[in-house]
Amino acid sequence: MIVVMKPGATKQQVQHVIDLVREYGLKDHVIYGTDRTVVACIGDKRMVDKSAIENAPMVERVVPILAPYKLASTEVKKARTQVKIGPQGFPMGSSKVGVIAGPCAVEDRDQLFRTAEAVKAAGCIGLRGGAYKPRTSPYSFQGLGVEGLKILTEARQRTGLAIVTEVIGLEQLDEVAEHADVLQIGARNMQHYPLLEAAGKADKPVLLKRGMSATMEEFLLAAEYVINAGNINVILCERGIRTFEDYVRNTLALAAVAELRDKTHLPVVVDPSHGTGHAHLVPAMCRAAVAAGADGLLVECHVDPEHALSDGAQSITPKVLSELMPVLRRIAEAIGREL
Amino acid sequence: MIVVMKPGATKQQVQHVIDLVREYGLKDHVIYGTDRTVVACIGDKRMVDKSAIENAPMVERVVPILAPYKLASTEVKKARTQVKIGPQGFPMGSSKVGVIAGPCAVEDRDQLFRTAEAVKAAGCIGLRGGAYKPRTSPYSFQGLGVEGLKILTEARQRTGLAIVTEVIGLEQLDEVAEHADVLQIGARNMQHYPLLEAAGKADKPVLLKRGMSATMEEFLLAAEYVINAGNINVILCERGIRTFEDYVRNTLALAAVAELRDKTHLPVVVDPSHGTGHAHLVPAMCRAAVAAGADGLLVECHVDPEHALSDGAQSITPKVLSELMPVLRRIAEAIGREL
Amino acid sequence: MIVVMKPGATKQQVQHVIDLVREYGLKDHVIYGTDRTVVACIGDKRMVDKSAIENAPMVERVVPILAPYKLASTEVKKARTQVKIGPQGFPMGSSKVGVIAGPCAVEDRDQLFRTAEAVKAAGCIGLRGGAYKPRTSPYSFQGLGVEGLKILTEARQRTGLAIVTEVIGLEQLDEVAEHADVLQIGARNMQHYPLLEAAGKADKPVLLKRGMSATMEEFLLAAEYVINAGNINVILCERGIRTFEDYVRNTLALAAVAELRDKTHLPVVVDPSHGTGHAHLVPAMCRAAVAAGADGLLVECHVDPEHALSDGAQSITPKVLSELMPVLRRIAEAIGREL
Amino acid sequence: MIVVMKPGATKQQVQHVIDLVREYGLKDHVIYGTDRTVVACIGDKRMVDKSAIENAPMVERVVPILAPYKLASTEVKKARTQVKIGPQGFPMGSSKVGVIAGPCAVEDRDQLFRTAEAVKAAGCIGLRGGAYKPRTSPYSFQGLGVEGLKILTEARQRTGLAIVTEVIGLEQLDEVAEHADVLQIGARNMQHYPLLEAAGKADKPVLLKRGMSATMEEFLLAAEYVINAGNINVILCERGIRTFEDYVRNTLALAAVAELRDKTHLPVVVDPSHGTGHAHLVPAMCRAAVAAGADGLLVECHVDPEHALSDGAQSITPKVLSELMPVLRRIAEAIGREL
Repeated sequence: MIVVMKPGATKQQVQHVIDLVREYGLKDHVIYGTDRTVVACIGDKRMVDKSAIENAPMVERVVPILAPYKLASTEVKKARTQVKIGPQGFPMGSSKVGVIAGPCAVEDRDQLFRTAEAVKAAGCIGLRGGAYKPRTSPYSFQGLGVEGLKILTEARQRTGLAIVTEVIGLEQLDEVAEHADVLQIGARNMQHYPLLEAAGKADKPVLLKRGMSATMEEFLLAAEYVINAGNINVILCERGIRTFEDYVRNTLALAAVAELRDKTHLPVVVDPSHGTGHAHLVPAMCRAAVAAGADGLLVECHVDPEHALSDGAQSITPKVLSELMPVLRRIAEAIGREL
Repeated sequence: MIVVMKPGATKQQVQHVIDLVREYGLKDHVIYGTDRTVVACIGDKRMVDKSAIENAPMVERVVPILAPYKLASTEVKKARTQVKIGPQGFPMGSSKVGVIAGPCAVEDRDQLFRTAEAVKAAGCIGLRGGAYKPRTSPYSFQGLGVEGLKILTEARQRTGLAIVTEVIGLEQLDEVAEHADVLQIGARNMQHYPLLEAAGKADKPVLLKRGMSATMEEFLLAAEYVINAGNINVILCERGIRTFEDYVRNTLALAAVAELRDKTHLPVVVDPSHGTGHAHLVPAMCRAAVAAGADGLLVECHVDPEHALSDGAQSITPKVLSELMPVLRRIAEAIGREL
Repeated sequence: MIVVMKPGATKQQVQHVIDLVREYGLKDHVIYGTDRTVVACIGDKRMVDKSAIENAPMVERVVPILAPYKLASTEVKKARTQVKIGPQGFPMGSSKVGVIAGPCAVEDRDQLFRTAEAVKAAGCIGLRGGAYKPRTSPYSFQGLGVEGLKILTEARQRTGLAIVTEVIGLEQLDEVAEHADVLQIGARNMQHYPLLEAAGKADKPVLLKRGMSATMEEFLLAAEYVINAGNINVILCERGIRTFEDYVRNTLALAAVAELRDKTHLPVVVDPSHGTGHAHLVPAMCRAAVAAGADGLLVECHVDPEHALSDGAQSITPKVLSELMPVLRRIAEAIGREL
Repeated sequence: MIVVMKPGATKQQVQHVIDLVREYGLKDHVIYGTDRTVVACIGDKRMVDKSAIENAPMVERVVPILAPYKLASTEVKKARTQVKIGPQGFPMGSSKVGVIAGPCAVEDRDQLFRTAEAVKAAGCIGLRGGAYKPRTSPYSFQGLGVEGLKILTEARQRTGLAIVTEVIGLEQLDEVAEHADVLQIGARNMQHYPLLEAAGKADKPVLLKRGMSATMEEFLLAAEYVINAGNINVILCERGIRTFEDYVRNTLALAAVAELRDKTHLPVVVDPSHGTGHAHLVPAMCRAAVAAGADGLLVECHVDPEHALSDGAQSITPKVLSELMPVLRRIAEAIGREL
């Protein structure tokens, strides 16, 4: 941590900062520059709330040097984490790229089974589908709940696909964990810390979506909550961020894939459905995500998008999916991976 | 809802959309323009997921016409809602402007009581302070929990101030509701729907903070969740949004105050502490918020910001607060209100 | 400037950075922390492109310490700059708040004169109006050009108001400078450096609008271009930034007013018309801007907004303006200023 | 265009809007819905400033239906435009993907020629390099000017590469056009309309970069300015947008590639250097851009990035480029294209 003093700071004011730094258990190192005095603070400042020092007289700003996360970082664990998912134990985070597809919401048995079979036939390794849906409006379809979970379990039995489904509150975590292979924590819950901690105590892998305005640091700190609570099987999911762009639901920030590979050992998947919001943009972004180095994809696929109870506009059909998969395979191979 | 067809859509394709519209229980009204055919859909579309139709062939886009919220809207309830808070029943949403101040977190009895007394002396009507803190890092101070709630209750007894404190999960809602006068739902939980519904069943007013990247519509739909569950005593809080700006923690969007007064009958308060992130910007934004027409303020105030366990950088001192209050009073009077 | 090495950087790699730093004419100061080695660089780095060093092996990032602007900074000039404008020499940047109002574009003599008289009667000190309009679409009204400038000059003769009008290219700068009292440089041209330099050589004050996605640093560097070319009479104008918000044309970032007062000696005005895009939000944001400490306002006002050739939606009528002015005066007085 | 009335609008108020619509030369079509009356306006509204009508009494909002651009649209021209560039006439916008690489700025003959040869050897078809540099700071290296243009011309003679270089003002347009194969208009100048019009009269292709906060519509309207002035040879360049993300210089919005292919017939290239700002992220984003369907890339490449006079941090070395090209070729082939 570096404390930058304002120009004109007196000796006493610098000393006051030094005293504060020492109080916080850090070692100080003062540098007198041409225009500014700077107090470098040595030691692990992860526990210190840097903002407190900013309020000392004549402090201009405080610049953190260390990343605030540890367990999620490649500094602490260099080997890439492979998260095994589903009945087949697909290794997410290996040289294999895994595609997970399925409807936004489980609507009924017929819809889900038809989709699941198409998803399986196309070569995907997982089935997504929400039983509990966090909906912007209280008047929208909220999911089938436990009934939906049972349908998902049945779909796994029929297809062998790994089941990925969302948990939106502590209160259903056990129930979801009982049926799901992967617990999805949605973008709106990325900073729902009690849920993160509870997921850290579950014995299922967690797919953690990036909040729609989360920085990389906040995203990795959310993962850190899960790991810190005991569960290292965290899959990160980039799903688009909120920007001024209005032709998309979210702006898919694919550089996040490369940045995360640099900063963390956890696997990274991409959700081009929420990441664009429109079916016609999804195939191009699936291709781009694989080319960027994503370990997997999470794609919304519906047998009848026009009648989907949620997210119809961003769901591709099984036909589009089955045509896309061979292209994705060739791209994966072009960068030395398999799919 | 207006469905815009792409140029070149055939009669059959338009008819297909008309059929879908009718299936959804809406009345259609087709307009043939110079370049586009447009299908206007008449009826209350709040239950319809518009996005489904977007996936029909040759549909360019779907434009919603009605706002998706009702109960929170001035269309349904024209009279402004006054939310009475605290032992004195201060009417938030009346001609009076109410200032709520206090530390980010309750740290100990001494800190809280000293702050509470200063806050009271300055003319504020409420005391804020977190007992459960949602922290970005798992290694940061997480609040005193129930112990903090008890200290807050004691502070109310000493000062008569209304206690505003955050609830971060369903699991402590009852406990918080027992001690608090106002249940604060934080920005990160604005779309935590199970919590919103639970707060809708509590018999305490709710102060709902705008999510850091929430649109007005999402914000009002979050309020709609609370009202729909039975609690109309919702106070909305603008607390800054996430943008590219880096000299502030968040960009305080004060036009939201005027827009919300137009769209909703609920009272609106402003949090210039999170809305800027830096103590030196807080007084100017307090003044601006009152001038813009805010019904109240939520301000972080700490007796010793340099040693605050959280948010020290954005906390003003009691001295700054006491100098600010008379200025705010004059501004309130300048626009025909009291403080 | 602080160069942060990645963990595991070797002595040679650190030495390589030290060599680079010295090559750039800076003094190095190495700090060995618990997890990182940091090379602090002492000297005025304004000429050095910091990004070059970032590409050296095992460099994690480069943190600038000094602001890159000088002449615009309160570090170099502490006394506030007063910019005298118009025939009356109104001192922008003094204790007086000056309101400049008028139509987006000069449309004809009648429209402008009627507006000018209303603006004058309301107590404003300047008249705005575009003769050259930068329009998003090539098919929109592009302004009357030199004819518009002549009408503006006539309006000044009739009313004594200071004329503020935009210059959109080097090629008309002389002509605009001949007729205008203040040269407005629009948001889209904030980083049009040849224009900034030319304006720096003109002998008229410059009103520089913040680019719609400009940081404070970029904004002040744009002012630096003008000052560096010889013209210190720069008025900064916050006019809203582009964010995800869709109920406004731009998000008016009023904290910028307080931040700029801290960082620069130049006067700061606010444009709540572009800053919101909708007439019904303009009065509240005018009030907030004055309360925040703005030295002036730039407001769009049109005698017949429904028929305005541009920006009708964000133009208030003379009636609204005349009712607003006394309120603004009371707010100015509440914070110890005049209007 | 659809005018949405507020609930409670009277017959007279609706009639007033109808009258306005007719005054603007449009045909009206009124729809009485359950909660709102809507006036659909038929006719080509491109010339009408919709915002004027928004100011009529009881109008809630105005929704445009037609895109405001024409010449750039696939509605008007379905066949994809191929822009032939350089001595070899490389067809940008064909099935071939073309890579253009080179330094941010021309620094001297040696630097440029060494880079040009490496770029050529790697299989690129164009050489980028700035002679006139728009720099955020007036104290930064501003380019070699006409001397730089001459060095670029020489580089073309040596290598046969197409020369892409920026023009930052009307005043050097002729000079740049004389030396360059492609006139680059930078992100900061995307809405510098006089420059766009002048480029529309030049007989060289134009590479138009998206402004850092430009919407798709504004981007295509900027292209429309160039085409409308007479030059259809416009190459669009996505180069990242400004968002809250701080680990990148800009957020590269690759969905723009797919969206633009849908909306316009113009070729689309991607600049992953500005689109990320950091060399370590560039290769992944080059791969993603090609996979997304970009017609070409614009990449910063420098023989000695640590000593680059500008943008060193985002420049890859010739070695990285030469390793990347075969991968890009395989990805292009995976999607049925060549490189």
